[in-house]
Amino acid sequence: MAFELYYWDGIQGRGEFIRLALEHAGADYVDVTREPDRGTDEMMEFINSSSEAHIPFAPPFLKDGRQIVSHVANILLYLGQRIDLAPQDEDARWFANGLQLTITDFVAEVHDTHHPIATSKYYEEQKEEAKARTSEFVMNRLPKFLGYFERVLQQNPAQGDYLVGDRLSYVDLSMFQMIEGLTYAFPKAMKHHDSRYPGIARLHDLVKNGPAIAAYLASKRRLAFNESGIFRRYPELDIAP
Amino acid sequence: MAFELYYWDGIQGRGEFIRLALEHAGADYVDVTREPDRGTDEMMEFINSSSEAHIPFAPPFLKDGRQIVSHVANILLYLGQRIDLAPQDEDARWFANGLQLTITDFVAEVHDTHHPIATSKYYEEQKEEAKARTSEFVMNRLPKFLGYFERVLQQNPAQGDYLVGDRLSYVDLSMFQMIEGLTYAFPKAMKHHDSRYPGIARLHDLVKNGPAIAAYLASKRRLAFNESGIFRRYPELDIAP
Repeated sequence: MAFELYYWDGIQGRGEFIRLALEHAGADYVDVTREPDRGTDEMMEFINSSSEAHIPFAPPFLKDGRQIVSHVANILLYLGQRIDLAPQDEDARWFANGLQLTITDFVAEVHDTHHPIATSKYYEEQKEEAKARTSEFVMNRLPKFLGYFERVLQQNPAQGDYLVGDRLSYVDLSMFQMIEGLTYAFPKAMKHHDSRYPGIARLHDLVKNGPAIAAYLASKRRLAFNESGIFRRYPELDIAP
Repeated sequence: MAFELYYWDGIQGRGEFIRLALEHAGADYVDVTREPDRGTDEMMEFINSSSEAHIPFAPPFLKDGRQIVSHVANILLYLGQRIDLAPQDEDARWFANGLQLTITDFVAEVHDTHHPIATSKYYEEQKEEAKARTSEFVMNRLPKFLGYFERVLQQNPAQGDYLVGDRLSYVDLSMFQMIEGLTYAFPKAMKHHDSRYPGIARLHDLVKNGPAIAAYLASKRRLAFNESGIFRRYPELDIAP
């Protein structure tokens, strides 16, 4: 039976981290809200159900038959061993989950660059605060996160191209997406990032040019970045570090 | 061998979610930075190591012999089955991890009520923005999160007192800590929360009065809340909903 992914239609958002894993593995899946005969109503009905036991707080969530799994890192942990994208030894799987949770925090901080005060309000209503938060992000947080992942790559005893062990895991796919999104949202801050974070840049290119991901990126299943998602390009937030 | 917990000395912070699990289970553990002959230097040395493979991004992290696990939800997932605080069936374990990740997001939003712009700056430098963010938190986010967890309790088919299944799991201990912290930080917003969220209030009391947790709360191992942690009481942020 196909995996069913539930996420907001029209944006990459947090759902994209799951799509990349499913696409890389060539897994059979349905992107429910984008199906012509299904849609967002079905997703909201499940989230708002007053009888379901395992209700999610928010999308994305995954259904695998009767199993429901919500939250990006949880879904990737679940899928990892089922679609052969998890590290092989247990020790490394715990490390991979920790890395994915660091990416979760990183994503939340990117979101807050454009929504530092209220998710319930428009960006335009918190533009000044967004500039201040983005300045902090670009000056301190971005180098802290990317510097950390670069160290993880450099200190990987397998001395290969990947974050964990000697083969690609779902964490590498998520790292690729971070670089794609950051480059879209913050071109000035990301300029020449490849010389500061060479391992990450190499990993990004490796993922991008893999046959399954390259085909996905060229397909219409890959939505473009836009200003409704997590990674948004606003000229006034494209701050030079 | 004892579990070794690494976290900042002097605050409950994110480390407290781990301490509560270890204390409830009566597990043998060392709170490394609070040991007289050890300390924060040892923690920082590990985080900043240029040779370790599995470096954490930030505390808390746990060492179990040679196994290193970082991030609260990851540590609790790891400990859950080892100290008998995880749900028994697999389906429920995935649900529990999703709930714990929702608590992770909830904690991050509490942190950002007092640091909406820059973690690198003092609260006093972002007080006005903190008021605006806290207003959003108290009006919209707090009821959304607590309302969700109340629904999870009400829709638990076991119809017991716990979030997952019919016995206490690490998620229940974390929920207790959320209520403790929120009541400390936002007494006006939390006033009469027990009538709006009766299941959560009952769960909080159940955890609080359990013998192991009651003994822990009365011990000097339980630090008091303070204005260096996640949950801070600032009169100007004690906003009525």
